[in-house]
Amino acid sequence: MSNSIGGLFTVTTFGESHGRCVGAVIDGCPAGLPLTLEDVQKEMDRRRPGTQAFSTTRAEEDKVEILSGTFNGHTTGTPITMLVWNRDADSSAYERMKDTPRPGHADLTARLRYGGFNDYRGGGQFTGRITASFVMAGAVAKKLLNTLGIEIIAHTIAIGGLKAEARSLAEIKENVPRSPLYCADVAATARMMQLIEKVRNEGDSVGGVVEGIALNVPAGLGEPVMDTVEGELAKALFAIPAVKGVEFGAGFGVAEKKGSENNDAYATQNGKIVTLTNNSGGILGGITSGMPIVARVAFKPTPSISKEQKTVNSKEMSDTTLTVKGRHDACIVPRAVVVVECMMAIVLCDFVRMAGILPEVMK
Amino acid sequence: MSNSIGGLFTVTTFGESHGRCVGAVIDGCPAGLPLTLEDVQKEMDRRRPGTQAFSTTRAEEDKVEILSGTFNGHTTGTPITMLVWNRDADSSAYERMKDTPRPGHADLTARLRYGGFNDYRGGGQFTGRITASFVMAGAVAKKLLNTLGIEIIAHTIAIGGLKAEARSLAEIKENVPRSPLYCADVAATARMMQLIEKVRNEGDSVGGVVEGIALNVPAGLGEPVMDTVEGELAKALFAIPAVKGVEFGAGFGVAEKKGSENNDAYATQNGKIVTLTNNSGGILGGITSGMPIVARVAFKPTPSISKEQKTVNSKEMSDTTLTVKGRHDACIVPRAVVVVECMMAIVLCDFVRMAGILPEVMK
Amino acid sequence: MSNSIGGLFTVTTFGESHGRCVGAVIDGCPAGLPLTLEDVQKEMDRRRPGTQAFSTTRAEEDKVEILSGTFNGHTTGTPITMLVWNRDADSSAYERMKDTPRPGHADLTARLRYGGFNDYRGGGQFTGRITASFVMAGAVAKKLLNTLGIEIIAHTIAIGGLKAEARSLAEIKENVPRSPLYCADVAATARMMQLIEKVRNEGDSVGGVVEGIALNVPAGLGEPVMDTVEGELAKALFAIPAVKGVEFGAGFGVAEKKGSENNDAYATQNGKIVTLTNNSGGILGGITSGMPIVARVAFKPTPSISKEQKTVNSKEMSDTTLTVKGRHDACIVPRAVVVVECMMAIVLCDFVRMAGILPEVMK
Amino acid sequence: MSNSIGGLFTVTTFGESHGRCVGAVIDGCPAGLPLTLEDVQKEMDRRRPGTQAFSTTRAEEDKVEILSGTFNGHTTGTPITMLVWNRDADSSAYERMKDTPRPGHADLTARLRYGGFNDYRGGGQFTGRITASFVMAGAVAKKLLNTLGIEIIAHTIAIGGLKAEARSLAEIKENVPRSPLYCADVAATARMMQLIEKVRNEGDSVGGVVEGIALNVPAGLGEPVMDTVEGELAKALFAIPAVKGVEFGAGFGVAEKKGSENNDAYATQNGKIVTLTNNSGGILGGITSGMPIVARVAFKPTPSISKEQKTVNSKEMSDTTLTVKGRHDACIVPRAVVVVECMMAIVLCDFVRMAGILPEVMK
Repeated sequence: MSNSIGGLFTVTTFGESHGRCVGAVIDGCPAGLPLTLEDVQKEMDRRRPGTQAFSTTRAEEDKVEILSGTFNGHTTGTPITMLVWNRDADSSAYERMKDTPRPGHADLTARLRYGGFNDYRGGGQFTGRITASFVMAGAVAKKLLNTLGIEIIAHTIAIGGLKAEARSLAEIKENVPRSPLYCADVAATARMMQLIEKVRNEGDSVGGVVEGIALNVPAGLGEPVMDTVEGELAKALFAIPAVKGVEFGAGFGVAEKKGSENNDAYATQNGKIVTLTNNSGGILGGITSGMPIVARVAFKPTPSISKEQKTVNSKEMSDTTLTVKGRHDACIVPRAVVVVECMMAIVLCDFVRMAGILPEVMK
Repeated sequence: MSNSIGGLFTVTTFGESHGRCVGAVIDGCPAGLPLTLEDVQKEMDRRRPGTQAFSTTRAEEDKVEILSGTFNGHTTGTPITMLVWNRDADSSAYERMKDTPRPGHADLTARLRYGGFNDYRGGGQFTGRITASFVMAGAVAKKLLNTLGIEIIAHTIAIGGLKAEARSLAEIKENVPRSPLYCADVAATARMMQLIEKVRNEGDSVGGVVEGIALNVPAGLGEPVMDTVEGELAKALFAIPAVKGVEFGAGFGVAEKKGSENNDAYATQNGKIVTLTNNSGGILGGITSGMPIVARVAFKPTPSISKEQKTVNSKEMSDTTLTVKGRHDACIVPRAVVVVECMMAIVLCDFVRMAGILPEVMK
Repeated sequence: MSNSIGGLFTVTTFGESHGRCVGAVIDGCPAGLPLTLEDVQKEMDRRRPGTQAFSTTRAEEDKVEILSGTFNGHTTGTPITMLVWNRDADSSAYERMKDTPRPGHADLTARLRYGGFNDYRGGGQFTGRITASFVMAGAVAKKLLNTLGIEIIAHTIAIGGLKAEARSLAEIKENVPRSPLYCADVAATARMMQLIEKVRNEGDSVGGVVEGIALNVPAGLGEPVMDTVEGELAKALFAIPAVKGVEFGAGFGVAEKKGSENNDAYATQNGKIVTLTNNSGGILGGITSGMPIVARVAFKPTPSISKEQKTVNSKEMSDTTLTVKGRHDACIVPRAVVVVECMMAIVLCDFVRMAGILPEVMK
Repeated sequence: MSNSIGGLFTVTTFGESHGRCVGAVIDGCPAGLPLTLEDVQKEMDRRRPGTQAFSTTRAEEDKVEILSGTFNGHTTGTPITMLVWNRDADSSAYERMKDTPRPGHADLTARLRYGGFNDYRGGGQFTGRITASFVMAGAVAKKLLNTLGIEIIAHTIAIGGLKAEARSLAEIKENVPRSPLYCADVAATARMMQLIEKVRNEGDSVGGVVEGIALNVPAGLGEPVMDTVEGELAKALFAIPAVKGVEFGAGFGVAEKKGSENNDAYATQNGKIVTLTNNSGGILGGITSGMPIVARVAFKPTPSISKEQKTVNSKEMSDTTLTVKGRHDACIVPRAVVVVECMMAIVLCDFVRMAGILPEVMK
């Protein structure tokens, strides 16, 4: 099931960039979760393009519709189908580029994978737009987790070479919603905005890093050996277009540490066992420890740039160049913040379901 | 299925560190693959402990037995069951540590997950020893891939803060098998050996980074949106104990690049389309491009150290300290090299099966 | 994934009887299959209510819409989403019956399963209407199988106690499309029509048996031990509401036979190995033999009858009676014929995909 | 995963008739279930061949070994691996029959499926012996269900044309354990024994019907639309070699009933809602109702008969005849009774796990 994720809380996505819609089916959301259209729309609005200078000018309203699975303001336990219709798609450019694959995009690999039958307009399903499906499903997942007290917050920690300074959880909660880049470091935000503006003017793009944090996750979630919390989160995060790296806790930094530095010492605190550091990112042996889950996700720069690039004409098997026109993000990272949250939420819902945990109201 | 991985080429592992055995069942290996015990033993020997100064002194012979699934020197298409018996297990230390979880280990999370019924001796299934199962299964996967011309090579690229210099593929192939650390940089190997010796003498440990490369992988493998090549590889790699980060191609480095730097330009070469760089690590849109797949995996330092550490007595809910005795690796990274290869092989076998690709001899 | 079926050719259904729509997502249909709306509508029209005297008077047009997964008249390899909107739903009766479960329906079990949050209008997802989803998906499956020369034909072989006489394959192909009951025995059809009319006038209903036949299925399909062709077909057929028995070949009749009668003798015929009888129903060891697959499916009488029935008031926990009003089929069997075909087609597509078989045009 | 069944309580089988062993891995048995070797051996002994006149003379001791997943007399939550070694296998006959497929067996279909690489000795995995794996796993499942008060009883209700008369549950519980055929009708047992003896002397075999009953199953289990209780039970039961039909409750009899006869009327009884009849077999809408689950399973006569049969030489593509020698059951039905119980138990464990139900002691 290549377009599904999760074992008990399962999300199946569908749709293409320039087709009729993009959507998702959630199978396995327990009955009795209060759910309104607004719950979903609120998250969708956080990934909307077109609201900021650094973003694509494609103007989709992205009004979510719920087609099944709710009744009297609650989930029914049957599949929840949601979609947004595509309206503002301009496919004219893609006909011209059909045989000249855009570097960094999936044009060529999709053609090879699907024998040339893939919908190449806007990349078909290989489009940032598919993340609208992730967000619809993730919005429901976040709602379910919230009823259990679990909170997920993502924020931008690097754009290009610019890194945000570490901030306390309180500062993150306060600053991120106000930042156009969802970054907790106010000073860095300003510099990042300038950098994005600069590369946009150069017809270029820039990548970055998003950190996702899950708070109040119960200890003891996880299905190792194979279905570890890290592994499932990583699989979900790599489904987000442009992700090339995922790490947890101290991440790649662990390679440079000694065991005595990296091991998180245990201590008792208010009758609970905690760790004094969190190099493990809240996960040991693939199982949650009760400490915050901390994941970091590397996003490559948007491959759509207006600078001339070397490519091939795959029909004539000759070398050529390409200049990509159209409406694109100079930096996808800020719009990806909510997507990271949603993918983390989807995976954690699955683990919560595996553990048989249900909010009181839904029992 | 928490102890299984793969959809068509499925590996299920079983066993515990101090139980009777560790083993694996492969379901979905096509009939007709020539397979001998030596094919599997050869890979197992590469992860054997006890052969080098930096390694644990637990001395398991790890002689693989094949219990089902082969006949007349070929696979039959039915489940292949393999195991190694445990013989040299000393459980005495674990009884004492039962209520004082070792920092950095899964002792506490396993107890929480399994309600205290987990086999805590040697960590139970939360043991480096479970990777013997991965290697048995991976050996079969590598054999299957080899019949298709696909080759997988992993090597150590960092130990502690020491980084190996980049080497050509030819140098990697030549130097790695000779290096006790499976590192292609001869000079770095020597320094790494000294570092390991040093931390061992301190009663400490050190982590590192392994790079896995898959060569001659056909273009067009992958099952996006959700089952991307990156995502499935990452999930498999995070199942290896101690892994805290996984990246592909330019990895976390993409965050600092501009699109014009990061996009891999296309060119024709000998009638094939290639990319002039490989920042994508051979994967675009979750689909293989035909370029080498390059993954990097961060391993944390072995949590078992003989230095005194802060922990708790979980029974009495009091703070205490712990000194871990026993036979442990000061650096797990060299023994993990073959494990990385094997996990990559298992995942690629699954994608190869999904694509319906079979060697001529097996059709 | 409770609302999905299939491993490689996966169908996920959604929707409720009185919700906005019923639909299906197919994940795993290979790219390149020619597919038009008419291909799907044609099958949908065969299950339409309201065209015959014996059928419900709920008048849905059931115009299929394809929301994703096709481009330029072919499948793209990405999820195919299809739906029909609900328009003619009258929910007024259900509010009254909320606490008095209809005998033979899933009213009570659904309430217990979903904690009372289920959409009880029209049975919610426990409705014959969900089979519209099966037909949409099955229509695509039948198209795919047709490109491989595989043909699936179902027909009514019993209504109430009336049994159709056995007919040759040629007669089945000729007579079934002309029969309002999809029955190959013309004389029996007339008697069955009278019986249905009689029970309808009594405010009662009647069951029956449908036989499904799959022709030209390649030998060697099947994934035993667990994923047998019989097992997967049975699972799919039991998903059709009202099915209480499934058998293959000689079916329950095998229990009365001796081995020497039941074993299908082999013989060579035109350079192929065939069996002289087909008591196995085309399946041995869970694997297709190349002979026709023959399945028989028992349907219970529609539980919705207008006769007074004993039930309970589940709120007051008291005994009471119920008379079900509304628009219902006196005999669901004829409308189920296309559904049986479609479920068989979905399952066989999955096995065909598992075997890596693809039509030439799609390679 | 063709050799696995179940989503949360998953059983994977392995082994061949004349290989080293047959076995099973259970993944998903919760931690804390008291489990001894005797719990498993007890069920294994009920399917042992060689103890009765009507049975094969192959004399396997079938002593179960548990290789992983238990510790201190309880399950640990990790995979439980069990096996029995093969010792008394005589493969000499099979070499001769290699190219002359036995009618009614999977010899030919297995060869086609696995390209001739299948282990043809004793049928390889297409052997009644694989049911030893089902029983090992089922024994654990039964133990888990027992802790929840769920009881599963199967019994023989027909052998050849001879049908047992219906007996009360009390009589079934009393008579079945004493009957060499596991039949509750004492008089019928005697006649059945004579019939089996007669067909054995004729070099023939005979089939039959087994009924499985599950008592005290909680209402509300089931994962429709696709994963119905009937569908999952049927899939599991069709995995038992020789099964050609499965029905629930009134089964195929529903086809001859009117709705007013077939609908099970509701009534209150001791503060619970019950049905006054059980034509539904305890399942409505694919969900358990709390009434006993009743399944009936048709077994074909053992295909191994010593009468001469028509077959082909598949190498020379010529017609020939075959007389099967060796040790075979004249009637497999009595030995299948425990297998039916075990398969039902495995499936119900999975549904119990899906519902998040756990015995108090294991929470």
